[in-house]
Amino acid sequence: MGLFYSKSVVYRPVNDINLGSDSTEIYLQANVKAPRMTGILVMIFAWFLESRIFGTLLMYILKRNNLIHKLITDAELEEPPLYVPLHHFEDPKEQETKNLDSALTPPEKVQLAVNCLPTHSEKALTETKDSFCRWTIMDYYKAYSSGDITPTMVAERFIAAVGESSKPPFRMGFFIEYNADDILRQANESTLRYQKGEPISVLDGVPVAIKDEIDCLPYPTTGGTKWLHKKRPCTDDACCVMRLRLCGAMLVGKTNMHELGTGTSGINPHYGAARNPYDTNRIAGGSSSGSAAVVAAGLCPVSLGVDGGGSVRIPAALCGVVGLKPTFSRIPHSGVLPLYWTVGMVGILAATVEDALISYAAISVEIPSYQHSSIPTKINLPLLPSTKSISNIKLAKYGKWFDDCSDDIRICCSHALNKLQDHYGLQIVDVTLPELEVMRLAHYLTIASESYTSLDSFLQEKNFAEFGWDARVALNIYGAFSSMEYIKAQKIRNRQLQFHKKIFAEADVIVSPTTGVTAYPIQDDTLKTGELDYINGAALVRYSISGNFLGLPAVTVAVGYDKLGLPIGLQFIGKPWAEATLIHLAFAMQAICVSDYRKPQIFYNLLRKD
Amino acid sequence: MGLFYSKSVVYRPVNDINLGSDSTEIYLQANVKAPRMTGILVMIFAWFLESRIFGTLLMYILKRNNLIHKLITDAELEEPPLYVPLHHFEDPKEQETKNLDSALTPPEKVQLAVNCLPTHSEKALTETKDSFCRWTIMDYYKAYSSGDITPTMVAERFIAAVGESSKPPFRMGFFIEYNADDILRQANESTLRYQKGEPISVLDGVPVAIKDEIDCLPYPTTGGTKWLHKKRPCTDDACCVMRLRLCGAMLVGKTNMHELGTGTSGINPHYGAARNPYDTNRIAGGSSSGSAAVVAAGLCPVSLGVDGGGSVRIPAALCGVVGLKPTFSRIPHSGVLPLYWTVGMVGILAATVEDALISYAAISVEIPSYQHSSIPTKINLPLLPSTKSISNIKLAKYGKWFDDCSDDIRICCSHALNKLQDHYGLQIVDVTLPELEVMRLAHYLTIASESYTSLDSFLQEKNFAEFGWDARVALNIYGAFSSMEYIKAQKIRNRQLQFHKKIFAEADVIVSPTTGVTAYPIQDDTLKTGELDYINGAALVRYSISGNFLGLPAVTVAVGYDKLGLPIGLQFIGKPWAEATLIHLAFAMQAICVSDYRKPQIFYNLLRKD
Repeated sequence: MGLFYSKSVVYRPVNDINLGSDSTEIYLQANVKAPRMTGILVMIFAWFLESRIFGTLLMYILKRNNLIHKLITDAELEEPPLYVPLHHFEDPKEQETKNLDSALTPPEKVQLAVNCLPTHSEKALTETKDSFCRWTIMDYYKAYSSGDITPTMVAERFIAAVGESSKPPFRMGFFIEYNADDILRQANESTLRYQKGEPISVLDGVPVAIKDEIDCLPYPTTGGTKWLHKKRPCTDDACCVMRLRLCGAMLVGKTNMHELGTGTSGINPHYGAARNPYDTNRIAGGSSSGSAAVVAAGLCPVSLGVDGGGSVRIPAALCGVVGLKPTFSRIPHSGVLPLYWTVGMVGILAATVEDALISYAAISVEIPSYQHSSIPTKINLPLLPSTKSISNIKLAKYGKWFDDCSDDIRICCSHALNKLQDHYGLQIVDVTLPELEVMRLAHYLTIASESYTSLDSFLQEKNFAEFGWDARVALNIYGAFSSMEYIKAQKIRNRQLQFHKKIFAEADVIVSPTTGVTAYPIQDDTLKTGELDYINGAALVRYSISGNFLGLPAVTVAVGYDKLGLPIGLQFIGKPWAEATLIHLAFAMQAICVSDYRKPQIFYNLLRKD
Repeated sequence: MGLFYSKSVVYRPVNDINLGSDSTEIYLQANVKAPRMTGILVMIFAWFLESRIFGTLLMYILKRNNLIHKLITDAELEEPPLYVPLHHFEDPKEQETKNLDSALTPPEKVQLAVNCLPTHSEKALTETKDSFCRWTIMDYYKAYSSGDITPTMVAERFIAAVGESSKPPFRMGFFIEYNADDILRQANESTLRYQKGEPISVLDGVPVAIKDEIDCLPYPTTGGTKWLHKKRPCTDDACCVMRLRLCGAMLVGKTNMHELGTGTSGINPHYGAARNPYDTNRIAGGSSSGSAAVVAAGLCPVSLGVDGGGSVRIPAALCGVVGLKPTFSRIPHSGVLPLYWTVGMVGILAATVEDALISYAAISVEIPSYQHSSIPTKINLPLLPSTKSISNIKLAKYGKWFDDCSDDIRICCSHALNKLQDHYGLQIVDVTLPELEVMRLAHYLTIASESYTSLDSFLQEKNFAEFGWDARVALNIYGAFSSMEYIKAQKIRNRQLQFHKKIFAEADVIVSPTTGVTAYPIQDDTLKTGELDYINGAALVRYSISGNFLGLPAVTVAVGYDKLGLPIGLQFIGKPWAEATLIHLAFAMQAICVSDYRKPQIFYNLLRKD
């Protein structure tokens, strides 16, 4: 046994590592050693993986070549394992916020959030007349309240738009299922409420779409598969969906997603590719692909996704919308497919930061649902706009990591950050975040092991023929880890927690691009088999991992476009429970960038006066 | 892949399972399918396990035959995984207790515990003149204070006794190391303090032994191996040891243990068998074997052990002393070998319940050291004796489980329990605790995976030749689990937590024997190779698992002897943080049984007046 060990990494004690800008820590770029495969190659690869002898050998080679052996399996590290990203941080001491009383009902919470909004919209801030803006929750509410437009009209337009967009030339795969009758029923009820002058909240009649990983009646929850809903019937709304329903939101259907969340392209072999509204020949990102695309295309101001490895923030960035992933356990997880337990969180995709704030107030809870936690967690809502509190915020930036992206992203994000600094005078601290690539691998190993465990009881009865080919490959790899590797990954989680605690002692927020690449093209032969593109995959998740592995809250906001006109997102990562600070920052950034926002290739104006 | 699954168990929802006495749940007896092996057979078995092809096959057969495949690997269960045994329980609302202010120093805490003791010792309660009693902490303190005996005299007698006992005919392997100079130095300092009339606390000059899994200067921490201390030097006292030292305790050396805690016999190939003071041809139990034996033999009133799978309670029961394993994280774990992270706790072995109480006050802490917990945990000390509070305690008893032990143990424990009931009129509720054998397997899988991970970095550089043969077999098996199996074991942990929460809603304490068998004989050919006796092993740990896997506090107290004169322990398992209730009960039980206590075959009276 002792003979077979390769040379391994011995991690130095956390306290010996310099996290300053002068650190000599090496920035390890993602060293993905897996060929890009589409079409028949994916199928052959799956067959190989599933063979007893070749499969074992292939897995060994994959793990070794991708440094899993060196950086995790054989590594020496002192930290005890940290299994769940719940931990003590100092009180973030957020400024210019209002506490959200946990005793309030969801509609009352929504009203409190509305009271936090600026009296003038951000459009007034920039004063550019021809800039592009999506309709917000408040726009819907005002239009409904004035009587110019009714929820029923919006529902009819919505149904027509989804029908039209799913056909050529666009072939958008926005939804896995939507039920026209159910939508119209909700719309009519809402219309009646407005007629009586009794809307439940500003969300009344506002179309909201739900990722098909979250239970929402009357729909089955497929998780992007053809079979999961038969094994696990949906019998009730998820807690977060029920809260939106209590606010009167019009739940318009279940959005498309990468099958079982196993990838970030959003290409689903069973329900089509979600496709990017800014270029329908390109990916929307994933796994909450449909949820991002519907918001980008103007079909809803808000949708829900689930973020286990950037799955809300990545498609939000690629589709040019806001993506908010709150602190781990901030939003109750009941009624969400239990695909994993220690990395995932419901997240919000929204047209604007204000809409993200309103939705956040509706669905977040003070007491974390995670069973063994008792960390007290007040919910603060930010008072917008806020010049004073933003100028007091310290941002941490790790230059080598920040710059590890395409030229367009680097230039655009740096430019946006400079403007933010110029406008508010906030301080940017140069730091070093060590071992980020190790964290990416440890997170992969964790989510893979948990997903495999979660799906195991279903896999036992199914054969792989019902899976898409890329999910089939993923699941074969997911089952390849030992308990020791899993526990070592949790030691790495603890180690990264220590690093991040130290960074957060010096700064309030970490800033980075949201993704390393913008939306890439969908190749025709991927539509049936999916694709294996671990290189683009690694670039897409590059900046997402701490949000999941350490449970940190994070928000992405659109800050510009690349040369091809594809959206670029900037990400703020906060201390646990400091969502208000992130929303403050995202709002300020949106105000700076909104005048440059562009209309997507496919866009529906549901509040038009025709 | 789908082809290879065997028929698996589908666990029913917890709420569908009847936990009452009329439950139809089947009690599954331990179904251990592994031959008992000693001597050359152990070596051959180890070689087989280490061979690539045979080893894989053998592991597969072992896991299948021992129902791990059926009950864990292939099982379907709904619960999310629970990785750490920290969780909310209702406040145990303990009666007749005194709160231990966390701001007090260890000596002040000890004084508070002394104030909780009855003014008359339990000897007065029973009024039997010829019964056997070990000297207590208070006996030492009174003897020192009166000047009749000095710590230096005790130290000299101690050193002589250990030297004598290690030779034939007894060949007791009490200690891995003890340093006469260091003991005498401490004794002289303590003697001086008493001469000045300034003892630090009642622990001043009291001999206390420490399991060689816990750091204690000036000794290396071997963990029962020949090499671990070279890889991990001991540089400071463990937190619990430092607290005892601050109270003036005389730290007399590092007790023997089962190598790396991998077994429960306490036979160590490198340092000899600890041997049972009641019959030196029998095991002391383990893994804290030496710590139990030294207390039983009168060498110390108190010692420390570590309990990852009954390792304090089992040897305490087999050696006829008190064993207290507090709630998970109640005693700081820093300075304890990190052999596992989610099941282990420092525990106290003591001559009497009063001594356990004093030591508990000295080393327990209010704020759990486990990093991400913030569960508030007041420390209550029981006011002894207590008739009122005991008569209000409800005991839960699961008959089929209680009776799954040798006839002598069953009769003795039932008898003791009846006497307790007669004396105090407390209520005993018949309950059903489902799936206990599943919990045993899940706990085994967990501690095995964690130990393997913990030792992996050392194993990489060592070859197995430095290990004892039985530890070598254990470590080979420990590395055989997948991440899915580990996570499923944590799901079982959560499931068992739900069961126990329901039981604890109906009762305050669960009562059981401490072990299923009493001390069994040491076969001569085990001394070099150790033995593989998974059947006796399963019987020894049968009643220990919930204390470790769910982190529940538990105490064992001697209640009698089998036909061969070997001690029998009864166990009380409490709600989290309800140590005071357990100590109340154990004290009452001790008072009932003390008149029948017997002197061991090997016993030293260090306070004799000669």
